[in-house]
Amino acid sequence: MVSFESDYIAGAHPEILKRLSETNLESLSGYGNDPYCESAKEKIRKAIGMEDAEVEFLVGGTQANAVIISTMLKDYEGVIAAQTGHVNGHEAGAIEYTGHKVLALPQKEGKIAATDLKQYLADFFGDANHEHMVIPGMVYISFPTEYGTLYSKKELEDLYGICREYEIPLFVDGARLGYGLMSRKNDVSLHDLAALCDVFYIGGTKVGALCGEAAVFTKKNRPKHFMTSVKKRGALLAKGRLLGVQFDTLFTDDLYFKIGTYAIDMAERLKEIFKKHNVELFLESPTNQQFPVLENKVLEKLQKEVAVSFWEKKDEDHTVVRLATSWSTTKEDLEVLDRALGELS
Amino acid sequence: MVSFESDYIAGAHPEILKRLSETNLESLSGYGNDPYCESAKEKIRKAIGMEDAEVEFLVGGTQANAVIISTMLKDYEGVIAAQTGHVNGHEAGAIEYTGHKVLALPQKEGKIAATDLKQYLADFFGDANHEHMVIPGMVYISFPTEYGTLYSKKELEDLYGICREYEIPLFVDGARLGYGLMSRKNDVSLHDLAALCDVFYIGGTKVGALCGEAAVFTKKNRPKHFMTSVKKRGALLAKGRLLGVQFDTLFTDDLYFKIGTYAIDMAERLKEIFKKHNVELFLESPTNQQFPVLENKVLEKLQKEVAVSFWEKKDEDHTVVRLATSWSTTKEDLEVLDRALGELS
Amino acid sequence: MVSFESDYIAGAHPEILKRLSETNLESLSGYGNDPYCESAKEKIRKAIGMEDAEVEFLVGGTQANAVIISTMLKDYEGVIAAQTGHVNGHEAGAIEYTGHKVLALPQKEGKIAATDLKQYLADFFGDANHEHMVIPGMVYISFPTEYGTLYSKKELEDLYGICREYEIPLFVDGARLGYGLMSRKNDVSLHDLAALCDVFYIGGTKVGALCGEAAVFTKKNRPKHFMTSVKKRGALLAKGRLLGVQFDTLFTDDLYFKIGTYAIDMAERLKEIFKKHNVELFLESPTNQQFPVLENKVLEKLQKEVAVSFWEKKDEDHTVVRLATSWSTTKEDLEVLDRALGELS
Amino acid sequence: MVSFESDYIAGAHPEILKRLSETNLESLSGYGNDPYCESAKEKIRKAIGMEDAEVEFLVGGTQANAVIISTMLKDYEGVIAAQTGHVNGHEAGAIEYTGHKVLALPQKEGKIAATDLKQYLADFFGDANHEHMVIPGMVYISFPTEYGTLYSKKELEDLYGICREYEIPLFVDGARLGYGLMSRKNDVSLHDLAALCDVFYIGGTKVGALCGEAAVFTKKNRPKHFMTSVKKRGALLAKGRLLGVQFDTLFTDDLYFKIGTYAIDMAERLKEIFKKHNVELFLESPTNQQFPVLENKVLEKLQKEVAVSFWEKKDEDHTVVRLATSWSTTKEDLEVLDRALGELS
Repeated sequence: MVSFESDYIAGAHPEILKRLSETNLESLSGYGNDPYCESAKEKIRKAIGMEDAEVEFLVGGTQANAVIISTMLKDYEGVIAAQTGHVNGHEAGAIEYTGHKVLALPQKEGKIAATDLKQYLADFFGDANHEHMVIPGMVYISFPTEYGTLYSKKELEDLYGICREYEIPLFVDGARLGYGLMSRKNDVSLHDLAALCDVFYIGGTKVGALCGEAAVFTKKNRPKHFMTSVKKRGALLAKGRLLGVQFDTLFTDDLYFKIGTYAIDMAERLKEIFKKHNVELFLESPTNQQFPVLENKVLEKLQKEVAVSFWEKKDEDHTVVRLATSWSTTKEDLEVLDRALGELS
Repeated sequence: MVSFESDYIAGAHPEILKRLSETNLESLSGYGNDPYCESAKEKIRKAIGMEDAEVEFLVGGTQANAVIISTMLKDYEGVIAAQTGHVNGHEAGAIEYTGHKVLALPQKEGKIAATDLKQYLADFFGDANHEHMVIPGMVYISFPTEYGTLYSKKELEDLYGICREYEIPLFVDGARLGYGLMSRKNDVSLHDLAALCDVFYIGGTKVGALCGEAAVFTKKNRPKHFMTSVKKRGALLAKGRLLGVQFDTLFTDDLYFKIGTYAIDMAERLKEIFKKHNVELFLESPTNQQFPVLENKVLEKLQKEVAVSFWEKKDEDHTVVRLATSWSTTKEDLEVLDRALGELS
Repeated sequence: MVSFESDYIAGAHPEILKRLSETNLESLSGYGNDPYCESAKEKIRKAIGMEDAEVEFLVGGTQANAVIISTMLKDYEGVIAAQTGHVNGHEAGAIEYTGHKVLALPQKEGKIAATDLKQYLADFFGDANHEHMVIPGMVYISFPTEYGTLYSKKELEDLYGICREYEIPLFVDGARLGYGLMSRKNDVSLHDLAALCDVFYIGGTKVGALCGEAAVFTKKNRPKHFMTSVKKRGALLAKGRLLGVQFDTLFTDDLYFKIGTYAIDMAERLKEIFKKHNVELFLESPTNQQFPVLENKVLEKLQKEVAVSFWEKKDEDHTVVRLATSWSTTKEDLEVLDRALGELS
Repeated sequence: MVSFESDYIAGAHPEILKRLSETNLESLSGYGNDPYCESAKEKIRKAIGMEDAEVEFLVGGTQANAVIISTMLKDYEGVIAAQTGHVNGHEAGAIEYTGHKVLALPQKEGKIAATDLKQYLADFFGDANHEHMVIPGMVYISFPTEYGTLYSKKELEDLYGICREYEIPLFVDGARLGYGLMSRKNDVSLHDLAALCDVFYIGGTKVGALCGEAAVFTKKNRPKHFMTSVKKRGALLAKGRLLGVQFDTLFTDDLYFKIGTYAIDMAERLKEIFKKHNVELFLESPTNQQFPVLENKVLEKLQKEVAVSFWEKKDEDHTVVRLATSWSTTKEDLEVLDRALGELS
């Protein structure tokens, strides 16, 4: 049995475990006040090309979204997101739990179009009754999106231009950022990304870490007393070193990017395998998540050897499933899939 | 420089790191649906002597308190805690963030007296206007308390008796449970504890783990759809294995208890050292936290060699500090402290 | 200048003011514990034909929605509503403020179709990952809807049937209930309505009162300690008599229904006037709100004599506006409108 | 049977009802955008001697407290209040519902001492761990307090001086402001009050109105998009005229102050009656609330003729009760009390 269920099926990248062991006995201050957190922050600042960026570590993706959104929004504001945005549908209402509405926009393959955003904002402020409505106070996008797709640099520039026009921050959920950056179709560099948004996070959990996301505030806009707000949300890790050491390792010798590249290579081979077996892909994803459409009968049999994730029902007889690659995907995993599909077709 | 700053200055107990490494490459389901979580839960159920207890893993202490309290309280209820309870003063308002009030009771050395609790509840329900007030819906105590003290079995029985009389759950914060259970003065077994409350948690972060607390619902009273509520609070760990493997290790070969015993031994030697140097202890703590009262001048010098935590100002010239022991405390640490105090007296 | 801006442009129905004056000097207990509240509740129970219905008074519509929804939903639940439902778009995020998500469904003329509801629930519970999502815990509809339309008895039965199948309550926002009940197209009696939902409210503010909505729990399902939860939300009125006297008056000699009938008559004449002047109606509304589509130029001139509400832009040159009738609409108001439209066409 | 149960046992001052009737048929915009609201705001600005004060109307006291506190506090802040402050004990947790902690200070006869406040703030910021705690972000006091007592001008100046030093706003709950201002012992003018705080409210509900509190932001510090935040909390009244007309009336011909003076006169006579019958007063209140200590047997009999409020148990045999006077208190009420006490002694 091999698994493509997600990009977090394995533990940590071995280099991370090694560094956790090497530093294990050092006596360090808690709550992020340790030299590994400092070093990791410094390396991230260098990687994004912004000396004064403010970096803060959080434990997981939903947590990062809720903490960042709720500390940056004002009382009367909500956050704009694609209908399919993770914050809108798959976080059990974590944003609403903080008292803020998610304002859903139409999407295409997981992406918001700049024209739709512009229209929404123009209509909103053109409505004479808008003070009775949730005021849009942030735009949330994910890079890659929940469908594995990417915004081009031009698309990002357009979205960010509108955000600046309306003076609302753009927040980029980078839970799988490494896979987006290293995609063969990507034209957005990490420097670009940092310049074209107000806050984003660098996903660790899904890119080799045991846990951890690095929130980056790029415009000297980290909310005041951020640590207190983090603690108030039950999101402050006592042994902050766990996050510091991991991100310090990920940003040493380009490990974060190497993991991204490796997983993208594996994903491209995955696509070839599906093509070879004439399996339709639900959409063209240039990153580490792939969405084949399988006949239900085929899926049932396949799952005896290959674990995949349910994505959505396509019709009575077909199901969209998701396969994800990561640093832990092996050639053998791909071979099992190839063989299994061969036997089923 | 040695450190007694806290019981979470080191990484994980080496056995835990070893197990994390050994299991690192296994493909496992996320969110706690892995065999290590299952195994850890089973071992915990055995350790507490309750086959049907429901065990859930959370990442940290403040998070565990907020999740447990807010999912168990009803809309109109608040939680009773000692004035000095961690939830009342040291969690940045995490309970209030969930919309519930902490109802503070007087305390003595960190403990609530059963008579005070009884009086509070009698007065509350005797007040003709009580429907205009926050209705007490839970009692929170910590074992050990924030001052290192312990409730005796008799005291626990009395508190729990009152809770049962008023039909409100008793919740025991066991962030440092291992040190309480293994204290030489303790007469409460883990079986007793589980029987004498409705929910408690077994602290991992401060007792050898990198992170993690095991919430135990002892009366088949785990809130419905608990996982969804956990996710809604940003508290669901994607790689649940990180918690599962750690607790599985802690509850294999009594590691959790051995860590407790070792730290208690170190704490007893700590007390002897203070006694030897005629340093007053703020109170008599039978667990791994000790609270010496130091002259400010002495403290200033001591801190050049020994890191301790500020606790509170005693008067203009004296400060109460906290020293904590753990599995990572060494004989050498104690020797440095002993020598340093000798040179300062 | 005459106004059709809303159905709350005037003060209270004169009979209400008269009763407020007559009872003004009586010494009464606060918070709803007065004989007028009791009497009003009793009259409402009779009017709906349910002796054991539980009636509670609240001050306004958004407040009623937020209080009812947030006290009835469980922690992990959200409320299903039409995309155009008042709670989804026009309450400034009041539901989200209570920590719960509004789950928006497609709508037609303001109404949810039973088939869409059924599909949504089937898809939701069919999704293997649904525990990571907001669990639907209530269905909210408005009667009349925000577009003035009505659910037929058959439609209500279908929706309620699905709710019962999934064991989630159906909540009917009756901010304009009087106009729905007395519509010439309506086939839902007040008895029907009470039987076909779990909770609804009888709008006072928009049907003759100064303020006030009467929440009716029809299945002995009023949340426990409701008054405390109401107070906690800042929604408890000290002088509860203000609500009691008003609803007692509205439900004496069928005043509530007479107000409804009168406004419906006025609305029908309004429609005739628009028809006469060849003004298109955005949709066919059988209640007291009408939505003509006006050329922007015409609208601009009309507003010098007749106040109406902006509803939405139709295209570059046309705007949908809303006119509402109420007990305070006069024949003279209609004549001014008729004449003004005549001069503009 | 006469009643001194509270200062909101009657309806509205007759002049208010008269004005509500006179203006009843006027067509007015909703949500506070009517000329009566404007006029009332202007009169209040004149009365407090501040041309640029921002005035906003809310419906009730608990609501006003929750709206003002939660819109002014930052995410990580809590509000300091006396242990006996209304927000701390008698609002069912309405402040905590907004996610903020009430930080209780010791009190004497309902008042906070400047020295205690100063010490609290010095200790808080002197604590090395204060970023893990709720940061004090506002000071709440009531004038008069819940015990009917008043801060002197000197005491207010001292408190406000500390607030300015720490740059946190001072908020004065004026639910019974009229009775404080007109107390014979009071040396704080309305001009003084406005100058010596950042926000306060002028209580209507308890001083002659059917409902309504006028929040006054004195330092151009009204939270941005306040109306949206008010609506979000379910606190926006559709027929804002109900508040506008009432406050316009209260601030016409000094009605608000006349009501205050009358009630104070009645309260002074109340005190004399108790003195005459040798009934001990729990404390010396210079305002409209009086707190006699009665033997339980006496109380039981008295309540057959005179309604009073339970305040607190003093000992096994004695109870503290509260009597309040208002514009509706009559000489006959006092005579009944006098006679009843005479027959009981």
